[in-house]
Amino acid sequence: MRIKKKPWADELYKQNSELFRKFPYDLKNKWHEHFLNDNPIELEIGSGKGGFITQLAKSHPQKNFVALEINEMALAYLLRKQAAEPLKNLFLVIGNALEISQYFEVGEVANLYLNFSDPWPKKKHEKRRLTSPEFLKQYQQILQNDGNLRFKTDNQKLFIYSLMTMANNNATLLDKVTFDLHKSEYNENNVWTEYETKFAKKGQPIYMLEAHFKEKETQK
Amino acid sequence: MRIKKKPWADELYKQNSELFRKFPYDLKNKWHEHFLNDNPIELEIGSGKGGFITQLAKSHPQKNFVALEINEMALAYLLRKQAAEPLKNLFLVIGNALEISQYFEVGEVANLYLNFSDPWPKKKHEKRRLTSPEFLKQYQQILQNDGNLRFKTDNQKLFIYSLMTMANNNATLLDKVTFDLHKSEYNENNVWTEYETKFAKKGQPIYMLEAHFKEKETQK
Repeated sequence: MRIKKKPWADELYKQNSELFRKFPYDLKNKWHEHFLNDNPIELEIGSGKGGFITQLAKSHPQKNFVALEINEMALAYLLRKQAAEPLKNLFLVIGNALEISQYFEVGEVANLYLNFSDPWPKKKHEKRRLTSPEFLKQYQQILQNDGNLRFKTDNQKLFIYSLMTMANNNATLLDKVTFDLHKSEYNENNVWTEYETKFAKKGQPIYMLEAHFKEKETQK
Repeated sequence: MRIKKKPWADELYKQNSELFRKFPYDLKNKWHEHFLNDNPIELEIGSGKGGFITQLAKSHPQKNFVALEINEMALAYLLRKQAAEPLKNLFLVIGNALEISQYFEVGEVANLYLNFSDPWPKKKHEKRRLTSPEFLKQYQQILQNDGNLRFKTDNQKLFIYSLMTMANNNATLLDKVTFDLHKSEYNENNVWTEYETKFAKKGQPIYMLEAHFKEKETQK
């Protein structure tokens, strides 16, 4: 997501330092303390402007939500919403997806969401795709044993790539797959993102999959 | 494929008994002897009227092909073609896919094709789908270690089912996946089936996947 630098963003970040954290290495294994409860912690990687996770946080007060985004300008929109009307069960993180196992302890995350992730179409950028084998390994680590990974995209090539990396990764098991989420049985509880609304208006199908991971081995 | 009984079929089968075999238990581990050469043996399960495998056999004289079909009336069309203009590297089998490991020895098949297999949409018929876990186990057995399974279908539900069973089967590795074969990079060497021509005319996309299996364990 390309977003121009916003003049208001710097000031907003300065004045609301309690609402977000940059590279939260120190919160690893301390997220429950941070949220002051034992409720499950759900993570969206690449939360963009935060429309999806805000809806989730509003409708599930009994769960905690972490919005991870590397683009500070995108996350500023969510921070602005949080500053105006804070949701206590939502926390913002400026961070790098590659580092998630430095932000979260083994099994600390209950569910994980990837929505309309950057497709990185060039082969040389394959490792940056959020469903590459290296990322799947990290997801298996941070997710609790019955935790789910939910992924949706309008990008057919990224979806096929993701199906294949998951299929060829022994630790990943596919639970749900649809090539047209909005016309599928899985649409009932679907929470729409900003992108999703745009693509649906154009009549483009949304691909969705849900997976979980085999239990982690005790010896790592 | 529902095909009415053909009055000419019985006589055809009687007069051409050297061109086909019913339930070829006795050919297990003897296919190379049967073909009188050491050329690789490729198998189509559910070959129908045989348009696909006939094209393959004509264009690959250095390989042997087995057309397996349970419907004698469908296979009669292929037998009629073989009786008129025999291809020495093509052999017809009336047989049950469930029994393939009784027809073929471990590793005896070089490549395996499933084309527009019956989707068996009802849950209670899942085991009959040619990409169910039970069938995958048998394919792993009969295929040689670097052998491929190539599957195409117009049926999205069967395709998704197949992707999921293969993804969740540790022994299966996906090599190619496309949601629109005719517009994909894999179309160049694609051999069309009778069904495929019909569906393509209607503008329906053809789904295709190619997989291979991990090496069989020595202890079975």
